[in-house]
Amino acid sequence: MLPKGFQYAGVYAGLKDNGKKDMGVIVSERKAVCAGVTTTNLACAACVKRARKILRRGAAKAIIVNTKYANACTGKQGERDDAEYAKIAEKLFGGPVLTASTGVIGQNMPLDNIRRGAELLKKELRDDYDAFAEAILTTDLVVKKISKTVQILGRDVTVAGVAKGSGMIHPDMATMLAFITTDADIDRGLLQRIIREVTAISFNQITVDGDTSTNDMCLCLANGLSGVRIDRQALPIFQAALTEVLIYLAKAIAADGEGATKLMEVNVTGARSLKEARLAAKAVAGSPLVKCAVYGGDDNWGRVIAAVGRSGARFDPEKVRMNWDGLQSKTVTINIDLANGRESAQAWGCDLTEGYIKINTKYN
Amino acid sequence: MLPKGFQYAGVYAGLKDNGKKDMGVIVSERKAVCAGVTTTNLACAACVKRARKILRRGAAKAIIVNTKYANACTGKQGERDDAEYAKIAEKLFGGPVLTASTGVIGQNMPLDNIRRGAELLKKELRDDYDAFAEAILTTDLVVKKISKTVQILGRDVTVAGVAKGSGMIHPDMATMLAFITTDADIDRGLLQRIIREVTAISFNQITVDGDTSTNDMCLCLANGLSGVRIDRQALPIFQAALTEVLIYLAKAIAADGEGATKLMEVNVTGARSLKEARLAAKAVAGSPLVKCAVYGGDDNWGRVIAAVGRSGARFDPEKVRMNWDGLQSKTVTINIDLANGRESAQAWGCDLTEGYIKINTKYN
Repeated sequence: MLPKGFQYAGVYAGLKDNGKKDMGVIVSERKAVCAGVTTTNLACAACVKRARKILRRGAAKAIIVNTKYANACTGKQGERDDAEYAKIAEKLFGGPVLTASTGVIGQNMPLDNIRRGAELLKKELRDDYDAFAEAILTTDLVVKKISKTVQILGRDVTVAGVAKGSGMIHPDMATMLAFITTDADIDRGLLQRIIREVTAISFNQITVDGDTSTNDMCLCLANGLSGVRIDRQALPIFQAALTEVLIYLAKAIAADGEGATKLMEVNVTGARSLKEARLAAKAVAGSPLVKCAVYGGDDNWGRVIAAVGRSGARFDPEKVRMNWDGLQSKTVTINIDLANGRESAQAWGCDLTEGYIKINTKYN
Repeated sequence: MLPKGFQYAGVYAGLKDNGKKDMGVIVSERKAVCAGVTTTNLACAACVKRARKILRRGAAKAIIVNTKYANACTGKQGERDDAEYAKIAEKLFGGPVLTASTGVIGQNMPLDNIRRGAELLKKELRDDYDAFAEAILTTDLVVKKISKTVQILGRDVTVAGVAKGSGMIHPDMATMLAFITTDADIDRGLLQRIIREVTAISFNQITVDGDTSTNDMCLCLANGLSGVRIDRQALPIFQAALTEVLIYLAKAIAADGEGATKLMEVNVTGARSLKEARLAAKAVAGSPLVKCAVYGGDDNWGRVIAAVGRSGARFDPEKVRMNWDGLQSKTVTINIDLANGRESAQAWGCDLTEGYIKINTKYN
């Protein structure tokens, strides 16, 4: 089941060279509350700057997405193009429209294709998100989508999510985009707060190669059409559903990292603070040496402890306990007890393989 | 020419499986002033803890080095072993002796071999550092050594340096060790200050894979036997020599990074602050995506600007100027002008290749 009152579409607009779908749209039946987080990269794309403005106002009617052109580091022309992009979409779907781009940095968007693509999208709108999920992929190998319905006071509330991970057609930036829709009726401030909280334990705890993109965004639209108000009593149930959706997508992105053959899950317990737990888990998931060990099926605890040691987390190396699980399977779990407190955190990554090098080296 | 009053040796003590030299020693004719910097990794090795104590007192007679056993994360036994290691060396060479280990984490040292090795070293002491430079290598492909003599008030002062970089026999931690000897007559506090300053622009500006070892150290002995006092007037000349030695070694380590085929030099100018210049240069040199682009001979400026963008340096993406040099040669230079101030910095790295994966994956 998908959230009430949203339509999705995905089409080929002639942006990609391989004829695969390259533009997508999500349209809410009525203007929705919006919230989200955007990249911390200073060299952010035009669409990111625009999204930040709309997020501050807190309402949007649609999200339009294109691949192949990140429209980052494209200067004033890029900002004009993005404004035109939004204008085209707003004419078709109502406004405001959030734009999201991914692809090559520094190249201007072909607005004619974008316009044609947007018109096609309008014709293809439907109640399922399959074509949309396909259209936002770049070199991702698998579609990443999930929907979760929970009951609150006897009524259904649904949260759906679609994401793309690290990968690109023309070797360039790995961009993470996630689009969440829900029919919950929720205040903008509350939605923003929980999106931020849940992002911190999901998308912000995955790492493929440590490179933060110019275009990363997680955007959420909540249109209220379930009729269920997210008050203090409903919040835990709603937040749990949102958490399930975001963690599922985060893990799917990590597992589909460039060249990855295995998902790595790192569980840190016994940390002095939440911050330290997160730092430790992420340092291990991001360590090239640990990633190579996971690839090789080698439970190399020295590399793990060295990664934790440089993470900023405090612990006594002699008290640390760790175990590896699933070394020969598709998901390798590394459990680390820092024995220094009560806080815990998870992080996800993938192994580092020759495939990553191949994908990211131009001539080979 | 090497600094006066130092002897060096390198021998095979049966630690490595391949019969190559695996222990080395540097002995000063008389007790020397010592200074140095040690790893920031919380899970540091026993030898690092010991070195910190000796560095606080500021005098040492010798440095003994072994490969194959890092003696890190070996608990109380490791500390006892390291104390015994030092005791063995102090009996042979006089004390205090700094110990430095590199190799596998979590395995106890075979003290019998260490004892035999130390005795052999005593017999092999001589005025050149070639055998020592060879003995401290692990999977480094080339020896890293340099000597620089300068004239101060008509007299020779020499600074010599030997280093090992990232590489290991049994896949484990990449450790950087550097040993500097000089016959300058210099106060301990001043030596410590300039070692710290020069390390900041040399060893701390190189990156192979972002993993900081449990055993990293740069140690310097100054025995004063040149008879040249490093006063305020002599300082710039001495510091310039030290800088040349450390930067040479740092670049040699980067160029010999695991799997590397090219040295990458990143020059950042026009930064708002020195800190930002260093952060920006290091972010670019350490970016997996930039490293892959260097490997592929692809002057991918989007990846560079994205790396600078997440580095913490402030700049206007539209004003940044950059050029790539030597794309098809052994040294690739990336020059970046942030156009936002007057500070500059350099960093060095290497390309990321299938070779790195091979070396660090156990079974292949």
